[in-house]
Amino acid sequence: MARETVVDSRQEILRTAARLFQQRGYDATSMNDVATALKLSKGGLYHHFQSKDEILFEIMNHAMEITQERVVDPVRGFAAPEERLRALIRLHIEVVLSPRDREITVMLHENHPLPPALRKRINSRKKDYIHFLENLIAEVQKKVQEEVQEKGRPQTKIKVSPRAAAFALLGMINWIYQWYKPEGELQAQNLIPQFTDLIFGGILA
Amino acid sequence: MARETVVDSRQEILRTAARLFQQRGYDATSMNDVATALKLSKGGLYHHFQSKDEILFEIMNHAMEITQERVVDPVRGFAAPEERLRALIRLHIEVVLSPRDREITVMLHENHPLPPALRKRINSRKKDYIHFLENLIAEVQKKVQEEVQEKGRPQTKIKVSPRAAAFALLGMINWIYQWYKPEGELQAQNLIPQFTDLIFGGILA
Repeated sequence: MARETVVDSRQEILRTAARLFQQRGYDATSMNDVATALKLSKGGLYHHFQSKDEILFEIMNHAMEITQERVVDPVRGFAAPEERLRALIRLHIEVVLSPRDREITVMLHENHPLPPALRKRINSRKKDYIHFLENLIAEVQKKVQEEVQEKGRPQTKIKVSPRAAAFALLGMINWIYQWYKPEGELQAQNLIPQFTDLIFGGILA
Repeated sequence: MARETVVDSRQEILRTAARLFQQRGYDATSMNDVATALKLSKGGLYHHFQSKDEILFEIMNHAMEITQERVVDPVRGFAAPEERLRALIRLHIEVVLSPRDREITVMLHENHPLPPALRKRINSRKKDYIHFLENLIAEVQKKVQEEVQEKGRPQTKIKVSPRAAAFALLGMINWIYQWYKPEGELQAQNLIPQFTDLIFGGILA
């Protein structure tokens, strides 16, 4: 019982469940496994979450909250579009590489189908983020074109649409977990400037 | 028995298994499910594959063969590095979007851990592809710098390393399956030129 009171936070349950899902696979992990890992009774776990689908949904929802709080909100604090895009790339990479949140955020890519109502809610939050990014890229492209025009330089047509660039950027960053090694050559401090240069070079091509 | 003789190809088994793994999840799909979907007896299936891990390995291995035959081999046919990189981007996107091969190639991203010996073989093939791409990007960057030098223009330092660019490109392309909709706006014919411009703009930034 003493242990049960320690698990007062739903977050601890989500974190442990996310770790198990990644180690063993979502389908191969039972509610019992999650309860055992938390030293909770099965009833104690069901007190917090009614099903494994609900846990998966809450993990994904928490990952989107992390994205909101640690990427989108701070990004809004920068005035210039270029600074906002730079900040977004840096902060999103930092979330993806964060040892504390990696197990939560990587679950956004779990392919297990959620019940339609829950899937809709997650997809809607994902779409909000994509639109935020798409609009930001469009703003950066527009601003740079205006600057070129003001300087009287020949106007060039922007070739990459904000939408294609937004998906490309999300792919680059969300894919990091597939190859990243904490002991490898490419670490946050050199990955962030390189991905930033690549995206800026690409969207202004 | 008549049906069993039809399933003469291991490829048909791999294709069906890949489809089931994606629909239901790898862990939730049993050898029995695979046999049933193929109208094979369980013994008939075990005649071809000794375990589910072996099927997953063979799917991944087949995906790497597809990459070799449909991307790497044709790319080698182009002389100029820029043409080779353009061809690689186009052909890799086409494989990822191919309705016929999508179910096979998407399994490369399955997180279920393979037995170490099998995982090593797949990782080694993945590494070969990354190195091929990395070397190709380095060649393109070198050639463009030489051309700039020949024209007597001021030399600019290349900012994005071939390795970071290779991972970025793979992320952009391999991530497509997460957002692609056959009825959406972004189709192969506009996705390919945009991703190509983005990468060329990025690696020459």
